[in-house]
Amino acid sequence: MPDITYQELKPPERILLGPGPSNIHPRVQRALTAPLLGYLDPYFLTIMDDTMQLLRSLFRTKNELTFPISATGMAGMEASFSNFLERGDVAVIGVNGFFGERMVNNALRCGAEVIPLHAEWGRIIEPEAIEAALKSRPRIKLLALVQAETSTGVLQPLAEASRLAKEYEALFLVDAVTSLGGEELAVDDWGIDICYSGSQKCISCPPGLSPFTANQRALDTLKARSSQVPSFYLDLSLLAKYWLAGNGRVYHHTAPALLVYALHEALVLIAEEGLQARIQRHARNGAALHAGLEAMGLALHAQPGHRLSTLTTVRIPQGVDDLRIRQRLLNEFGIEIGGGLGTLKGKVWRIGLMGHSSTEENVLLLLSALEKLLIDEGYSVEPGAGVAAATQNLKKKAN
Amino acid sequence: MPDITYQELKPPERILLGPGPSNIHPRVQRALTAPLLGYLDPYFLTIMDDTMQLLRSLFRTKNELTFPISATGMAGMEASFSNFLERGDVAVIGVNGFFGERMVNNALRCGAEVIPLHAEWGRIIEPEAIEAALKSRPRIKLLALVQAETSTGVLQPLAEASRLAKEYEALFLVDAVTSLGGEELAVDDWGIDICYSGSQKCISCPPGLSPFTANQRALDTLKARSSQVPSFYLDLSLLAKYWLAGNGRVYHHTAPALLVYALHEALVLIAEEGLQARIQRHARNGAALHAGLEAMGLALHAQPGHRLSTLTTVRIPQGVDDLRIRQRLLNEFGIEIGGGLGTLKGKVWRIGLMGHSSTEENVLLLLSALEKLLIDEGYSVEPGAGVAAATQNLKKKAN
Repeated sequence: MPDITYQELKPPERILLGPGPSNIHPRVQRALTAPLLGYLDPYFLTIMDDTMQLLRSLFRTKNELTFPISATGMAGMEASFSNFLERGDVAVIGVNGFFGERMVNNALRCGAEVIPLHAEWGRIIEPEAIEAALKSRPRIKLLALVQAETSTGVLQPLAEASRLAKEYEALFLVDAVTSLGGEELAVDDWGIDICYSGSQKCISCPPGLSPFTANQRALDTLKARSSQVPSFYLDLSLLAKYWLAGNGRVYHHTAPALLVYALHEALVLIAEEGLQARIQRHARNGAALHAGLEAMGLALHAQPGHRLSTLTTVRIPQGVDDLRIRQRLLNEFGIEIGGGLGTLKGKVWRIGLMGHSSTEENVLLLLSALEKLLIDEGYSVEPGAGVAAATQNLKKKAN
Repeated sequence: MPDITYQELKPPERILLGPGPSNIHPRVQRALTAPLLGYLDPYFLTIMDDTMQLLRSLFRTKNELTFPISATGMAGMEASFSNFLERGDVAVIGVNGFFGERMVNNALRCGAEVIPLHAEWGRIIEPEAIEAALKSRPRIKLLALVQAETSTGVLQPLAEASRLAKEYEALFLVDAVTSLGGEELAVDDWGIDICYSGSQKCISCPPGLSPFTANQRALDTLKARSSQVPSFYLDLSLLAKYWLAGNGRVYHHTAPALLVYALHEALVLIAEEGLQARIQRHARNGAALHAGLEAMGLALHAQPGHRLSTLTTVRIPQGVDDLRIRQRLLNEFGIEIGGGLGTLKGKVWRIGLMGHSSTEENVLLLLSALEKLLIDEGYSVEPGAGVAAATQNLKKKAN
């Protein structure tokens, strides 16, 4: 090897309040230090079975095909499109943020035709628009919506969309990357046919896995394809042969066993907390953050009534330097928050309160830190107003 | 959540002598416990830069585009085909094992036409066959070979193939999943245009990443595509925008930061050992294993003179139960070895000596354990012959 220089690995500790990853529980991190096993080791197979069972509970589904794809949430998105769409299919896709645009990008790469449902970044897709699109053409194959738009902080209602998808016989696909484990989601009861998420958001497992589920209706579509799935790595039929014990556990790729351990432990932590309690925790802390930010005179970007607990977009006040605030939060307080994506770049901050990062302490710390830095920037804010409002909100919710 | 049962995570310790993953060094596992960072954290970006630099040394390349893809080696394979082949292209692919077949599968999914170069599973692809295929048609886009066939234990020579690829103006693609960090490989000196590997074999990092490199000649082909790359997740142009600092570090997916830490540490360990010393260690231990197995009267499956040090295929003697031996190795000795894949299922065992698993102790332990179990199966073997031959071989090499 030629001479090269490299550093000793010494990452600083961070409070991760950005768009993900979130902080991980010490038990999850410890799971990564368990002995590594081969991808067909009998003990590892039992952990796979456990993990699928725990994931089914989290998705609230009985779908047999429920497992983590061995790559990040973006691979879950790609698997959702590349398995169920083929050349010439038509898909209706909600585009009210960065990840809606990504879904369109994925659908186009499958050779599908896309009818985009545009809405302002920060607003929901309205049911009327969905219905108009679904009835505009015969045989629409798929309706896709992002439940929790990480770029805008909007929580998309799904009930009416699901009913419409059934009425017009389209598959209903939901991106739950920033909602699964933090916002209400019930795959079976809500009639969702295909759903994917990411490990590193509200589940608080390290990044690298994409929890995925699809029901029989979706799998029937897959079986009826006239062309091969373009991706070998994300071919669900092959993945199912490895993951589902009844299918013979046929080798497809070397499972990232340590990440599966971590996911297993993260899911056990969710089971211990209780899913409803966890969602309420996210709701409580999200509401407190919203109250605190508004008490500081800041404007929340997402449409009122449709705001996520797990990710909040707040408008950057005029005259305040986006990057300087974020850098000072990181360097002086060890807090990461996210900048705006796409058309919201420089206009909003994105504050995540996901999984292990969604705590009262983090809400109060962030509000205090932000207040100090905003005052330094010349922004006028009543000292203590944010923390006081958040505290009061938390107290109210506790009663 | 409905009532579900799950177990506490308590994987047994294993000596991983299968086709991968290999055992990982305690320092690599400890790297997984370092604080998690966001995908654009300034410190994490420096670890990405380091990791790319260390990977370039390992691949022996100056290619700027050299980074780990955020999924396992099979995704590296898919990226290699789906970025550089498109509908109507013609590829010549060596098919002398399971992974050669996989390459064909991937090329066909790209809509390419494949000229397969078949050879018996256990033999190399001969240069004459390569030349005949390359001259059989004008404008062949790509020649693909597996350097280390994990299914057969064959080490494919690459020098003449590389020369022929240049002569016929085809891109030269090499699968180095079971060779990188364990067998000799020099991407630039050997004229390899595209090369991928897996993290969990001779690098001894946990599974989940695929080291990848491509040179300017390959990237020019990518730029000249007439159609979009079918995969968003594996689109190298987008990945390069995130990984390469000069391209603006544009978000593409959430990097699996803890796996990148582990890879960084695994690569530092390789730099400390020295790449040549490491390859010699693999050669020494592989030769000792071969000598030991042959002294036990067992037949090595791969073509003499073209045997891998990192993975050995040995024929299962008649009358010996494949599965029972492997299960007893696992249960009584904690040793994992692999069964045969594809046409070699039930016919060979696959013994890996990769990375941290490639030690003299493991060679001697495996030979001893195998001897005991073979005798139990009624196979006639001179007690101690395998270990004696391996020990002698190791001594000879040490002098």
